[in-house]
Order: sequence, then structure tokens, then C-alpha cells
Amino acid sequence: MTWLDAVRWDADGLVPVIAQERASGDVLMFAWMNREALARTAESRQAVYWSRSRQRLWHKGEESGHFQQVHEIRLDCDNDVVLLKVTQLGHEPGIACHTGRHSCFYQRLEGAGWVAVDPVVKDPQSIYR
Amino acid sequence: MTWLDAVRWDADGLVPVIAQERASGDVLMFAWMNREALARTAESRQAVYWSRSRQRLWHKGEESGHFQQVHEIRLDCDNDVVLLKVTQLGHEPGIACHTGRHSCFYQRLEGAGWVAVDPVVKDPQSIYR
Repeated sequence: MTWLDAVRWDADGLVPVIAQERASGDVLMFAWMNREALARTAESRQAVYWSRSRQRLWHKGEESGHFQQVHEIRLDCDNDVVLLKVTQLGHEPGIACHTGRHSCFYQRLEGAGWVAVDPVVKDPQSIYR
Repeated sequence: MTWLDAVRWDADGLVPVIAQERASGDVLMFAWMNREALARTAESRQAVYWSRSRQRLWHKGEESGHFQQVHEIRLDCDNDVVLLKVTQLGHEPGIACHTGRHSCFYQRLEGAGWVAVDPVVKDPQSIYR
């Protein structure tokens, strides 16, 4: 029995993960991990997710250089959701989103529509070459 | 086409939801919503989730009195994760977790084990009568 066994993996062997910026408290992104991704994250102290679309391990920042340094790994009361406290590396301010924005949660409901309310920090075409 | 149609609901018609305390930035909990839950949340400005275990709408606080006032509803870049900015009502400091803690994410990985590092604010037996 290890700490990895305490996690309640879902039917696909995954657990949802929230990445929160330690310094600002901003929620940066949401992704998934399998057992190996979580083990690697804990060992390397950099976020490694499971890409459901590509069906492979995804070392966040492997293409963009925007790695996530992991300060804390937390687990919720049901043992089925993980929260990371991170520093978003590679750019100041940190860019977690593939659109070149700080956070993936840049759309806000205003009236009857979603509005992009946060700026693009850096052109994604200059991030992903 | 409404703003609800823009959400990419999963195969079960659900979307993952992160509730973050507006004042502190603390991530309080993680849950799920179906279309009706999100519509009710937007209309009432109180968080209404979909309970997967009970297979019914769950007005957060209906048993505990610890409702969540919703200030902002955000959507991520893939349109498949929702972030709420809330005030956790009914107690000061707010109690979002059924264990009587402020946040559900009270377990931290330390060495090779999960450690409960945040205190119980109020005995859950006195919350759920």
C-alpha cells in the first residue's frame, strides 16, 4: 500500500487535477493524471499529466518550455481529485494556456454569453514553433 | 444556440466544476454539473451541482446551510471545465467540506503519505443534523 494506492482512480485509471499558481492563487488549468503521471510529478516536482486526446504522458511545457514547478500536491476528502500548487515557469507572468494566456479560465459568463476577459500574454505562434 | 450549448458536455452530459473562494483564492471543492445545474446556478447565483452518487441535482448547502454565493462563472479554453468564484456562506470562515473543513483539499503529500494538514473548523455532526 503506497500513497498512490490511496487515490481513487476512475474507471479509466485517471484522476482530475487542478493546477493553482502558488503566488497568486489563480487557477491556471485543469487536466488529468494516471498513476504514472502522478508518480513522476511527485518525483520530479514538475507537472506531468495524462493527455486523453493523445493517450500519452504529457510533461507540461515539453513543447512550450512553460513547465510547472510543483510545490505541493493535495488530495481532496474523497481521495479522487488532486490539487497542485505550482509556479508556472518559462515566462513572466506565467502562461499556462495554449492560447498564450495566463490561465485557461479566461472566458466569463456575462449576460447570455461567454466573453474572453483576459488578455493574450504572448502570441501562441511564437510559443509553439 | 445559447451559452449552455457552448459548453462541451461529456458523454454523461456533465462538466467538471471547480469552486474557488473569491476573497482568499482558496480552491474549496470540485464537483460536477449537468445542463440544468449550470442553468440554475447562473439564474439563482447559488451553486447547484449534479450529485453523481445520488443522481440528482444538489443545491450545495441544502442540508448544511452552507450555500455558495456565485460571483463569477468562468469556462476554460476547451469549453469543458467550469470555474466558479464564490463566497462560502453559513459560517465564518467558510466551510465547503463535508468533514467540517474550510476546503476539501486538506490532505497534503508529505514524503510517502497523505497528511491532513488543515483543521476541522466545525464538528460535522453539528452541521448535519
